[in-house]
Amino acid sequence: MTKVYDRIALIGLGLIASSMFWAARRGGLAGEVVGYARSEETRDTAREIGLCDRIEDTAAEAVRGADLVVLCVPVGAMGAVMAEIAPHLASGSTVSDVGSVKHHVIDAVGPQIPEGVHFVPAHPLAGTEHSGPRSGFAELFDNRWCLLVPGEDSDPDAVARLRALWEGLGSNVDVMDAEHHDLVLAVTSHAPHLIAYTMVGVADDLRRVTDSEVIKYSAAGFRDFTRIAASDPTMWRDVFLTNKEATLEILGRFTEELFALQRAIRTGDGDHLHDYFTRTRAIRRGIIEAGQDTDAPNFGRGTVTKDQP
Amino acid sequence: MTKVYDRIALIGLGLIASSMFWAARRGGLAGEVVGYARSEETRDTAREIGLCDRIEDTAAEAVRGADLVVLCVPVGAMGAVMAEIAPHLASGSTVSDVGSVKHHVIDAVGPQIPEGVHFVPAHPLAGTEHSGPRSGFAELFDNRWCLLVPGEDSDPDAVARLRALWEGLGSNVDVMDAEHHDLVLAVTSHAPHLIAYTMVGVADDLRRVTDSEVIKYSAAGFRDFTRIAASDPTMWRDVFLTNKEATLEILGRFTEELFALQRAIRTGDGDHLHDYFTRTRAIRRGIIEAGQDTDAPNFGRGTVTKDQP
Repeated sequence: MTKVYDRIALIGLGLIASSMFWAARRGGLAGEVVGYARSEETRDTAREIGLCDRIEDTAAEAVRGADLVVLCVPVGAMGAVMAEIAPHLASGSTVSDVGSVKHHVIDAVGPQIPEGVHFVPAHPLAGTEHSGPRSGFAELFDNRWCLLVPGEDSDPDAVARLRALWEGLGSNVDVMDAEHHDLVLAVTSHAPHLIAYTMVGVADDLRRVTDSEVIKYSAAGFRDFTRIAASDPTMWRDVFLTNKEATLEILGRFTEELFALQRAIRTGDGDHLHDYFTRTRAIRRGIIEAGQDTDAPNFGRGTVTKDQP
Repeated sequence: MTKVYDRIALIGLGLIASSMFWAARRGGLAGEVVGYARSEETRDTAREIGLCDRIEDTAAEAVRGADLVVLCVPVGAMGAVMAEIAPHLASGSTVSDVGSVKHHVIDAVGPQIPEGVHFVPAHPLAGTEHSGPRSGFAELFDNRWCLLVPGEDSDPDAVARLRALWEGLGSNVDVMDAEHHDLVLAVTSHAPHLIAYTMVGVADDLRRVTDSEVIKYSAAGFRDFTRIAASDPTMWRDVFLTNKEATLEILGRFTEELFALQRAIRTGDGDHLHDYFTRTRAIRRGIIEAGQDTDAPNFGRGTVTKDQP
């Protein structure tokens, strides 16, 4: 139990913020955690389930006296939230965020940071397909990576303290610059999500194969795509709109490669296909060895018995 | 414990055949199960782990006296295997298969079926990313679907008996024609696999993002693709080469849709993206309600602790 901050304010109470609260409580990392969400329903839910030590009805009230303020709203809402809280931030405090895109957040939030307040953008690479205040759990960040993206003039102590928090929440921590972050995430997250959304949309849209067939026979591979294609629509809309260039670059590479494989299928080039499919196996092994996924068949999904619905 | 066949011969001893054996034993569905694999190493492994009641060194010997012979080899090898066993099949016996493509298998195997032998093609929609004789387990088919694709002149009793076997192995059974099967599978399995292989290949191939970054940060979404992209390369090469038309048709639809979403990103059409992402959520709910996937976050993957490798 090592306290890192006296008071943490979480602005926005979805999956990430709620998991931060439960993990901070598990680790005794904060004297107090104060929460705020724009929706009254979310605030009511948070109070009902004991999410945060205290829930305030305005963002201004929530950040008052906090030594760390974490923006946990969709990327497109960061700038407006920052405008709301800026006049109320304590001198010497740190503002951070958990947005999936960093360049845009830095552009939207950075210029609004008051004199005497630190700004250390961050992005925990963790999540599930569920969202909202009830979806959080203390183990979400365990052995996942959190990327810190400080500016060149960031205060080293403020960065070190935020690193200590994320390590206390269970994460491994790396530091990188915003441009590289946005490219890496385009590869490991943004392009895969768009592709999954597309595949699920196509299946839903075909007139020659019914939705009920797609659903019944999904265990043949399709169902794996539906998990990430069930992620929060607002969050993902904002990600794509604010990381346009890197996402479109990776999607361009993807399409190029897909066309090459389609040509191999059309021309019957079995060797090309076999070589390609052998190479992709190695990446999976690397991920399992790095502790970033399970080796259990089918992700270790429990067997679904006939008695279940 | 209801015996359906006196002697089942499994030709090819990978994931599906080995799971069929364990599930048949669990259900007491066969008097005896005889196995054969082309590779001596596989036959040795099978004998070592007690896979099948008896392992024979030739396919001819394995099928002798069997009332059901199931071809469990890659789709591209079905025709050659059938040529090998045809002269040794018992009169009145049934030949079936487990291939992921049906038109091609029917074309390759059908004409070689001797007079007095039944042919009932089948395809269990179940699997994992693992392969080989050690990868099977009795629960693989539980509450999954098995599609039977009998010809118009198939013997109804032979079809009913095969259905009883698959139900005994744990499956739900549907009957459809070969053309529709190949289209449905192109949507639910073949196109998703090719897309996953492509995405993993692209990530591996980028020079500006390292493999180690792709692996470390894979929990942001990418890792979901690596599971099916770790599937058996030979099996999948054959699937694409033998279900060309349907796969290419679905990939064409996929590309069209992907381009529309890319355009929405480029032009900043957030409403289009938000509507699309909202619609795809519904499919996920349908799959969970149909018992074809778990509702646990992240497929219920166990939390990976820092102590694990």
